[in-house]
Amino acid sequence: MARIVMKFGGTSVADLDRIRNVANIVQREVRAGNEVAVVVSAMAGTTNQLVGWCQQLSPLHDQAEYDAVVATGEQVTTGLLAIALQVIGQKARSWAGWQVPIRTDSSHGRARIDTIDGAAMLAAMQSGEIPVVAGFQGIGPDGRITTLGRGGSDTSAVALAAALKADRCDIYTDVDGVYTTDPRIVAKARKLERIAYEEMLELASVGAKVLQTRSVELAMKERVRVQVLSSFADRPGTLVVDEDEIVEKEAVAGIAYSRDEAKLTIRRVPDRPGVAAAVFVPLSAQNINVDMIVQNLAADGTTDMTFTVGRADLPRAQAAISALHDEIGFAEVLVDSDVAKISIVGVGMRSHAGIAGTMFRVLAEKGINIQVISTSEIKISVLIAAEYTELAVRALHSAYGLDAN
Amino acid sequence: MARIVMKFGGTSVADLDRIRNVANIVQREVRAGNEVAVVVSAMAGTTNQLVGWCQQLSPLHDQAEYDAVVATGEQVTTGLLAIALQVIGQKARSWAGWQVPIRTDSSHGRARIDTIDGAAMLAAMQSGEIPVVAGFQGIGPDGRITTLGRGGSDTSAVALAAALKADRCDIYTDVDGVYTTDPRIVAKARKLERIAYEEMLELASVGAKVLQTRSVELAMKERVRVQVLSSFADRPGTLVVDEDEIVEKEAVAGIAYSRDEAKLTIRRVPDRPGVAAAVFVPLSAQNINVDMIVQNLAADGTTDMTFTVGRADLPRAQAAISALHDEIGFAEVLVDSDVAKISIVGVGMRSHAGIAGTMFRVLAEKGINIQVISTSEIKISVLIAAEYTELAVRALHSAYGLDAN
Repeated sequence: MARIVMKFGGTSVADLDRIRNVANIVQREVRAGNEVAVVVSAMAGTTNQLVGWCQQLSPLHDQAEYDAVVATGEQVTTGLLAIALQVIGQKARSWAGWQVPIRTDSSHGRARIDTIDGAAMLAAMQSGEIPVVAGFQGIGPDGRITTLGRGGSDTSAVALAAALKADRCDIYTDVDGVYTTDPRIVAKARKLERIAYEEMLELASVGAKVLQTRSVELAMKERVRVQVLSSFADRPGTLVVDEDEIVEKEAVAGIAYSRDEAKLTIRRVPDRPGVAAAVFVPLSAQNINVDMIVQNLAADGTTDMTFTVGRADLPRAQAAISALHDEIGFAEVLVDSDVAKISIVGVGMRSHAGIAGTMFRVLAEKGINIQVISTSEIKISVLIAAEYTELAVRALHSAYGLDAN
Repeated sequence: MARIVMKFGGTSVADLDRIRNVANIVQREVRAGNEVAVVVSAMAGTTNQLVGWCQQLSPLHDQAEYDAVVATGEQVTTGLLAIALQVIGQKARSWAGWQVPIRTDSSHGRARIDTIDGAAMLAAMQSGEIPVVAGFQGIGPDGRITTLGRGGSDTSAVALAAALKADRCDIYTDVDGVYTTDPRIVAKARKLERIAYEEMLELASVGAKVLQTRSVELAMKERVRVQVLSSFADRPGTLVVDEDEIVEKEAVAGIAYSRDEAKLTIRRVPDRPGVAAAVFVPLSAQNINVDMIVQNLAADGTTDMTFTVGRADLPRAQAAISALHDEIGFAEVLVDSDVAKISIVGVGMRSHAGIAGTMFRVLAEKGINIQVISTSEIKISVLIAAEYTELAVRALHSAYGLDAN
C-alpha cells in the first residue's frame, strides 16, 4: 500500500463529466490498495471570471479581498468531487484550506505555505475517507483566506504530500508527462520516464510550463516524488525524482526554448570598477530581472555590456539605462527583442564531457550565430536570432540522441 | 448615531453595477453618521447554478458537501462588495460565516444559528471599518460550513443585528416595502409604514413572501426592528416592529391570499372518539401539513370532515385517506383543488369588534360562498372558490378602508 496525493488541474475538473472522470481515477487508486488524498484546482474558467470581477471593480483591488473571492473556485470543486466520489461508493469529504489547516504567511495573492497540520486529515484517511482538499489556498496568521498565486495548486499538492509523508504526489494535467522538448515543434520529442528535480527546475525556468516552479523547488527540498500525468489517458506519466533515482543519466535530458527574451547592449562603457553595479542595481531596484550577462573588453579601454531581460520589461529597462547615460558615460544602447534562448539541460552534464562543444558545433553547422552564452552546472543556454528557434531545437534534439525511434 | 445592519438580496447584488450601487447606499448610511455592518446574499442566479451542479451529480447529495459548494456564492459577493466600498473610499472587509463566527447546529442545508460572537466584528466597526458578512451560512460544531436554507440571509441579518445590538436591520430587496395586499391584483394597495411582527408572520405564512418567516420569528423574539426597503428606490420602506410601536392600530393591516391550497372532504365518518386522530396522525406521519379543519355533525350520527392541505400534497393526502377506508369506515373522499384561501390580518382585531362580521357580509354581498373558516387571534381566513380570489381581495380591501387615496 502506498500513500498518494493526487492533484487535478482546472481542465481535469472543467465540468461535471470530467469531475466524474476524476472520481473514477481516484477510485482506481483506492481499489489498487492505496491510501489517497486529493487536491483540486478550480473548474477551468472559474478563476479567470472571479479575477476579472475583482479587476473590473478596481485594478488595484485589495489582495485580501481578491483572495476571499478567488479561493471560492477551488472550494466549489472540492464539494462537487466529494459528491461524485460518494455517488460511486467512496467515503469522501471536502476540506477548505482553512479547515486542514494549511497555514501560510500573510502575503495575500502570493502567500507561501508555512505549515500544514495533517493530523485531522490523516485520521480521516485512516478511517477510509478520501479527503478532497482545495488547492491554491490557505489561511493567514490573522485568520483570513490567502491564495498562493496562479498555479499554486501544484504547490499545495506537494506540500500536502510532504506533510502526509506520502510516497508520491501525482499531478494530473492535460499533458501526459514531461517531454524531451516541445512536441509542437519537434515531432520526435519523447516522453521522459524520469527527470531529476534540478532538470525540471531548469526546464520550467526556461519555458516548459508543466509544473509550477515553486512546487518543484518544494518537492526537491522535501524529497517528494512527483509524477506528471494526464487525466485523459490511462498510462504512466513522468516521475520527477532525486537524481540518484535515475540510473542511466543521459548527458542531456531535455531542450527548452524561450522567445520571451530581449537583449540590450550598452556600447563603449568605461571599463572601471563599479560600472556593473551602476548598471544592474538600478534595474533590480525596478524589479527588472536580468538573465544572461556578457562583457567584452575593447582595445580602447571601454567595454560592451550585453544582457537579457524579459521581453515585457524591455521598455522599462531601456528607459532605466538611458537615464544612467550622464552618470556612467557610454556611447549608446542597442536593443534587440528578436531573439530566442535555447537551453540544453541534464544532470548528466556533471559527468559527461564535451556537451557544450557539441552544442556549439551543431549550431555552427546550421549557420546559426550564437549571441550570448550562459551556463550553470546542469544547463547551457545560448541566445540566437528568433527565426532559428525551431531549426536549432530540432538539430540539438537529434544531436543529443533524444529523438524517438 | 445609530447602529444598522443592512442586508442586500441576490437581485440587489446581481452584477458589478448593482454591487457598486449597493456600495453607494452603504456609504450614504455611513455619511449620515451611522455605524454599519452589511450582510449579502449570492449574486442572483449563482446559488441556483451551484445547487444545480450538486443535484446533477446526485439528487440525494451529501448536505455537508452541498453547503461547502453553495456557501461560496455569498463569499464571492462579500469580497466584491468590500472592494467596491474601498474604491469609493470606505474601509471595508469581508467576513465569511466561519470567520465571524456564526455558530450553527449541525443540520446541514437547513441549519439554525446557535450563537454569534460579534466581538471581533464590533471592534472592526468601532475602528471605522465596514464588515461585509456572508449571509445564509455559518460554521457547525465540527468546524464544517453550514447553510441556513433558502432565504436564510434574512435570518443571518436579523441574528447579526441582535448580536450587535443594532438599532435596526434594513432588509434591501426588489420591492419597496410591505403592502396592504398584492399590488398586482389591487391597484389601490398601499405601502404600510409600520407592521407588527405578528402581522408580518401571518401575512408571510399565507403567501406574502417579502421576508423569510424564520427571520421574522427571530426578529420578534430578539426585538430587532426590521425595515423592508428597495435597493433600487431611495425612499423609506416598511418598518416591522413590536405592536406597541404602532400607535394607530388599524383593525386590519393587510389582506393575503393563497391559491396553493386543496380541500378534502371525508363524507359520513362515524362520529366516535378518536376518529380525528385516526385521520390526522397518518397525514402528519407523512409530513403532510393540514391547515384548516371543520367538522359538521349530520342527523344520522355520522359527520363530514373537511380540511385543507398544500396543493402539492393533495395526491399523497388523498391516497393516505383512501387507505384508511376499511379501518375508519366512511362513505367517500371528495377533493377540490380549485380553491383559494383569503386572510385578513391585523393586531387591531384584538380590540376592534365586528371584523369577522364585516368579512362575511362583504363576501355574501358579492355572492361568494365561504367553504371553510378558520381564525387566530389576529387573523381570519376563509376558503372560497379560486375564481373569486381577486374579487374577494378587492372588495375586502375597500371594506376595511385600506385603499390608497
